[in-house]
Amino acid sequence: MGYPDRNSITGITMGCPASVGPEIILRFFSENSAYLKNSIVIGDCNVLKKCARALEIELTPEPWNPGEILPGGKVVSVYTPELYDINQHHWGIPDNNSARAMAGYITAAVTLAKDNIIDAITTCPISKESLQNAGVDFPGHTEMLARLTSTENYGMMLAGPNLRVVPATIHCALSEVPGRLSISLIEDLLLLINKTLVCDFGIKAPKIGVAGLNPHAGENGLFGNEERDIILPAIIHCRKINPDITGPCPGDTVFFKAYQGEFDAVLCMYHDQGLGPFKLVHFADGVNVTMGLPLVRTSVDHGTAYDIAGKGIANPASLKSAVELAFLITENRKKKQE
Amino acid sequence: MGYPDRNSITGITMGCPASVGPEIILRFFSENSAYLKNSIVIGDCNVLKKCARALEIELTPEPWNPGEILPGGKVVSVYTPELYDINQHHWGIPDNNSARAMAGYITAAVTLAKDNIIDAITTCPISKESLQNAGVDFPGHTEMLARLTSTENYGMMLAGPNLRVVPATIHCALSEVPGRLSISLIEDLLLLINKTLVCDFGIKAPKIGVAGLNPHAGENGLFGNEERDIILPAIIHCRKINPDITGPCPGDTVFFKAYQGEFDAVLCMYHDQGLGPFKLVHFADGVNVTMGLPLVRTSVDHGTAYDIAGKGIANPASLKSAVELAFLITENRKKKQE
Repeated sequence: MGYPDRNSITGITMGCPASVGPEIILRFFSENSAYLKNSIVIGDCNVLKKCARALEIELTPEPWNPGEILPGGKVVSVYTPELYDINQHHWGIPDNNSARAMAGYITAAVTLAKDNIIDAITTCPISKESLQNAGVDFPGHTEMLARLTSTENYGMMLAGPNLRVVPATIHCALSEVPGRLSISLIEDLLLLINKTLVCDFGIKAPKIGVAGLNPHAGENGLFGNEERDIILPAIIHCRKINPDITGPCPGDTVFFKAYQGEFDAVLCMYHDQGLGPFKLVHFADGVNVTMGLPLVRTSVDHGTAYDIAGKGIANPASLKSAVELAFLITENRKKKQE
Repeated sequence: MGYPDRNSITGITMGCPASVGPEIILRFFSENSAYLKNSIVIGDCNVLKKCARALEIELTPEPWNPGEILPGGKVVSVYTPELYDINQHHWGIPDNNSARAMAGYITAAVTLAKDNIIDAITTCPISKESLQNAGVDFPGHTEMLARLTSTENYGMMLAGPNLRVVPATIHCALSEVPGRLSISLIEDLLLLINKTLVCDFGIKAPKIGVAGLNPHAGENGLFGNEERDIILPAIIHCRKINPDITGPCPGDTVFFKAYQGEFDAVLCMYHDQGLGPFKLVHFADGVNVTMGLPLVRTSVDHGTAYDIAGKGIANPASLKSAVELAFLITENRKKKQE
């Protein structure tokens, strides 16, 4: 795709040291070594070396610090902001040390981005449970990055070659979803999606579909009124910015329509409504993009997969897509500034 | 597929006269005329004649009554239990007459099935709103059929060649979903799914996946406890009948796994959680099967599509799949009885 030839650098956070993170990073670079000249890993050199040995991957993780050049070739440049005791490392078994380390990688990545040392961040999976056990009180990556960059208006987009989905609510119990929806939330997200499609994806006149909250989008009030009271007013307001916003659409057909090309992105109301359809068609190559941050951030869209960590069977496809997309968005944003 | 050669008869209810029902029936028979010897339409002869003329389909709808033979050939045999004024018929515009007529077709189909005149019912779409306007107080087809057959334990399965999905709750506001779940509901449905897969689909040892209610199936209680309190106890209980029940699984990956062949069916907790993924891959050829009824009932899995009714562009693929599946289930049930 040519992005690694460009003059930009993506920082890949290693995620939980006990997860599939180290493995997908090495497998990705081993199959795409051209990226090594334009990427750094923010993680642990010893864990990566252990992983490379175990998987017999012929790459050399080496310490790297801001200001140094990236040698490329077979060298994986690793920036390590947080000490981690390799003797306590066991694949698939996270502990407080791994939790602290993985939180440190995220914080360090944001600092590097703020200092313009890296242009984009691509994140490998963390365990939210483990994060909370370590006293880092964020429901996930996205919320943590928003806080670290003082961003109030942000959102998560799942992007694949054929479908882009944004959930209005994410990590909360289903019973809390209706109470969390508001006209301003939907409006903010619609404007954010519109801006992301235009600026980050280079789509001049984006078409956006909006799912209803209730089955059949409430079927004219038969099953709930959130469509009439919250979603529709927000859509009508945002059509002043982009008239091509359609909805509330029944949540069981809007993803099919988007997949057929009718919409460039779908705003859905909650996690499983959008992520079920998305992962059905983009399980391996889906990317999580954070909208609204001052920095570019993409992420793999799978979890820590502790059950298969260190076994050499984790698929680096989502990481590859995430890194490619990070370079693409960086480039599109630079074009906009020119 | 050979089913029409068998000695069984499927009754196809026409659904709302103003909908795409008449059109998909004629288009289906026009492409699959072998089925005419084993099928009757429970609907209106005049509407079907009007439709055949408009679409230039060379089939002859003719009145048929119980006890008469089915001529086949180019003759569509139509049983009309309910008078309907053809002068009031307008494509895409339902009224009280059309609502009453479509309710009558369903009631008549159940009577024919109870009298062993037909072996299975395949239903074309009705409008739930129109049904309620006509004073027939059921949220949908399925509930009406359950009442007419005095069935208490029933459920809706969406079946396609690669995915089968059963929602635990269907036509209710999303805010009501958590309150409607109970251990006994999940247990009843799991046993029903198991029985349906064995008896109706002929799968000897079915593998069933169960979705959680909350994102990531609650992620160990971080987002809700319904998985621990309701879904898991029901699964554990039902494993005494079938040990191959897996869950609660995260709702964003369970459908992908089923699609890959890991599960023969997925029990999900609410409408959009399951139907979004299902329609993404089986938009055209998905079938709605009612589990638990004493009679065989399949249905198209799309709506009335009033916006395109009578225009000759409605796709009969779902009806074809529904009729084929009705014959297949009839045959499998007969085998079990032998």
